Amino acid sequence: MSATHGHAGQSHCLRLDNEARANARRRLLSVRGHVEGILRMLDDDGVYCVDVLKQVKAVEGALDKVGDLVLRSHLRDHVVTAHERGDTDEIVEELMEVLKYR
Amino acid sequence: MSATHGHAGQSHCLRLDNEARANARRRLLSVRGHVEGILRMLDDDGVYCVDVLKQVKAVEGALDKVGDLVLRSHLRDHVVTAHERGDTDEIVEELMEVLKYR
Amino acid sequence: MSATHGHAGQSHCLRLDNEARANARRRLLSVRGHVEGILRMLDDDGVYCVDVLKQVKAVEGALDKVGDLVLRSHLRDHVVTAHERGDTDEIVEELMEVLKYR
Amino acid sequence: MSATHGHAGQSHCLRLDNEARANARRRLLSVRGHVEGILRMLDDDGVYCVDVLKQVKAVEGALDKVGDLVLRSHLRDHVVTAHERGDTDEIVEELMEVLKYR
Repeated sequence: MSATHGHAGQSHCLRLDNEARANARRRLLSVRGHVEGILRMLDDDGVYCVDVLKQVKAVEGALDKVGDLVLRSHLRDHVVTAHERGDTDEIVEELMEVLKYR
Repeated sequence: MSATHGHAGQSHCLRLDNEARANARRRLLSVRGHVEGILRMLDDDGVYCVDVLKQVKAVEGALDKVGDLVLRSHLRDHVVTAHERGDTDEIVEELMEVLKYR
Repeated sequence: MSATHGHAGQSHCLRLDNEARANARRRLLSVRGHVEGILRMLDDDGVYCVDVLKQVKAVEGALDKVGDLVLRSHLRDHVVTAHERGDTDEIVEELMEVLKYR
Repeated sequence: MSATHGHAGQSHCLRLDNEARANARRRLLSVRGHVEGILRMLDDDGVYCVDVLKQVKAVEGALDKVGDLVLRSHLRDHVVTAHERGDTDEIVEELMEVLKYR
């Protein structure tokens, strides 16, 4: 990682794998459709709170799956090779930070 | 609650409050924009995994806020009056079920 | 709720139901035993990280169940009657606050 | 990793680092004390539900910290060297599995 770069990922050798990227895109298009579905539900002024809540949780579940596939890709492509590359500290702290939000 | 209805919310007296509904819609439009932002990130074939992960977590945080405002509205408008209405069992079980997904 | 009290629960009429209390105690004794089991695992200097992690998650799952039973009891005994009692604001904010930690 | 072993950790070379192990033990002793504190709260038959819930969440927060320190140790000592060792598949799937419970 170059000293002029703010985090491990700005190194040119670390990028999201093409297949995982295509897969994430497909799932996010579905997430966007699902969010639009909730927006339509909200046009009905008789909509029930718990039905909205359930749809919000379902979208979060779909986003968790996007997160999982990106995380698995990151682990396989970048984390398991950190020691060889010599950026263990950055990779580990960055990962701990992003996992905190789960 | 009518016996022909599958859950507490299909009762005509239980509906999401107008202000909460408008507020949820505003936030969901912003969530949709955020999802579109991640889709644009994925067009860059050099995008870094952890940057995608962070944005996914941020969208989940925004959805949590939508969920919180709908939940607070449900508690204030429907749960605290369940005993008076006589549908305590349905309201409590339905709420426990939806909170499980958090 | 008396003005001299700091939160809704210090009112003498709001207390954890005896059966839920006995049930929570039983489960917490089992949680304590499980924590002691992890402490014993740690005496083995060859213990594997992921085995410890799995046990920590299992204890958190058991604590979630204690939380669920106390929460259900609170909803049934105190939240659904808040409107009648006239402490809706305190009850709702207190509950939103405690659910945030989930 | 030997074929007679059920998971990556049963390999003799993968063990929880001594410092992390001592640190986890210290924190778990405190968790056990905290659980005993909740058990004493439950002896008071006037205890308020939400006070119990808050303590349960606090213990879960303390356990999350134990989990974090064990996870960081696992990442630093085993995950970043998986490619060199040649057990990337096992290490990644095992980690994804244990992170699912968060």
